[in-house]
Amino acid sequence: MEKTFSQWKKQCLNKLDLSKKGSVDADIGHVVSLLNSREEYFTTSSCSGRVILLDGAPESSDVQKQNCVWLFVSHQKCTSDDLVSGLARSSGDAVLKFEPFVLHVQCRRLEDAQLMHSVAINSGFRNSGLTVSKTGKIISAVRSTHGLEVPLSHEGKLLVEHEYIHFLAQIANEKMEENLRRIHRFYQNLQSALPTEKLQRLQIPDPPVSQELQDPPHRLETEKEKNKTTVYKRRRKREQHQRTDCCHGDGSSSQVPDLDDCLDLFT
Amino acid sequence: MEKTFSQWKKQCLNKLDLSKKGSVDADIGHVVSLLNSREEYFTTSSCSGRVILLDGAPESSDVQKQNCVWLFVSHQKCTSDDLVSGLARSSGDAVLKFEPFVLHVQCRRLEDAQLMHSVAINSGFRNSGLTVSKTGKIISAVRSTHGLEVPLSHEGKLLVEHEYIHFLAQIANEKMEENLRRIHRFYQNLQSALPTEKLQRLQIPDPPVSQELQDPPHRLETEKEKNKTTVYKRRRKREQHQRTDCCHGDGSSSQVPDLDDCLDLFT
Repeated sequence: MEKTFSQWKKQCLNKLDLSKKGSVDADIGHVVSLLNSREEYFTTSSCSGRVILLDGAPESSDVQKQNCVWLFVSHQKCTSDDLVSGLARSSGDAVLKFEPFVLHVQCRRLEDAQLMHSVAINSGFRNSGLTVSKTGKIISAVRSTHGLEVPLSHEGKLLVEHEYIHFLAQIANEKMEENLRRIHRFYQNLQSALPTEKLQRLQIPDPPVSQELQDPPHRLETEKEKNKTTVYKRRRKREQHQRTDCCHGDGSSSQVPDLDDCLDLFT
Repeated sequence: MEKTFSQWKKQCLNKLDLSKKGSVDADIGHVVSLLNSREEYFTTSSCSGRVILLDGAPESSDVQKQNCVWLFVSHQKCTSDDLVSGLARSSGDAVLKFEPFVLHVQCRRLEDAQLMHSVAINSGFRNSGLTVSKTGKIISAVRSTHGLEVPLSHEGKLLVEHEYIHFLAQIANEKMEENLRRIHRFYQNLQSALPTEKLQRLQIPDPPVSQELQDPPHRLETEKEKNKTTVYKRRRKREQHQRTDCCHGDGSSSQVPDLDDCLDLFT
């Protein structure tokens, strides 16, 4: 098993990056490097988060998404001009989407995947989950619930005013900021959760997160204490909302199943 | 372990349903019954899919969602009048959402969870994933990527025309239809994937799916053959799109990690 994992890792990291962009997004370079420097993990795909404007054939179903044209894509903040000029080229049904950070990490053992999953959940990535294949591949997917999906044109005809598009650009940018905060939190939680003795001594670049996204300098509590505080707040929040956002449930499980169990890894 | 699982199951199924709605949604009663009739599974929470109109405090972040007011919610199709009259009561920032089917299933063993996960992925629920807790609880979450999230008012002021709201109601209803088709596919795939000898002889209600959602009667291929066809189509689709929708990847993994590995369970 050990050998298979390290073989997989070597093979994967030596492969050409076949994604459209062909490289890791700048805002998550430090996360990807941290994980790939660990013997128990390697990343198989990632996206730091993006705003996209897609133009689909009006009659197409979800199954035929391949006919989509990308009118605009950005991994940074966008302007309403970006969206307006993209929409001017729409000839079908254009949709504006914000797609948050997503990361797939192959893990050596199930307990490594459990740790990754608990860090993800604890950092706000509530749609995270594991995949365990018959061949022994264990993947931890880090996913957020944080999105935006707004139809904006039909058969090339714009359905909304420019003022609304301006408002949407603001909303998308706020989501991008919150997304960066969560990536930062995920990185910090990862650093404190990963046992230090297993760190391979590689050069890990500094994160490109600006000062405003970081915790105020007067907070002197340790990472572990911070995690405990977060866990406490989350538990409080769940207790208050047991009856609110779930259609059928046993009261102990909301959209996030067994959060406490996941978080137990930290306490 | 066996004893613990059956104890958990008994305890969970005997509990009061503490969700807001207090019962299982009609469109997934048959799915929940099928799973709870199996000795290796039980459901801990579920939602058949819904259209919701939420009114949030304009300054609130994602963390403060508890201040949201539900202006409208429906587990069936909606009309534009439903949305217009809901929006008339908005005093904050209203957002229209379509939230697809979500199901959490506790599984006896990891291989039971793998089977559930492969059925979910194979039925189009690409955001599905497992959670394995330290205490031995294994949850398979069935989740879709299929959503809609449209800001519609700001500080109580409507941002769009009524014509656009009418268009959105249509889009939301199309998503609801596609959602029901996927639930039906999931149910069919579950039935063919679950080993029949383990079925506990309980009365399972007929699914409430209308004829139009079912496969045409002239298709005589078996469920297994159908699954194989689906797998084949998905593989073809992935081969065509390796370079399109992933920011960084090894080409063998897209947003769905190791789909082939999951689907291998069927072949």
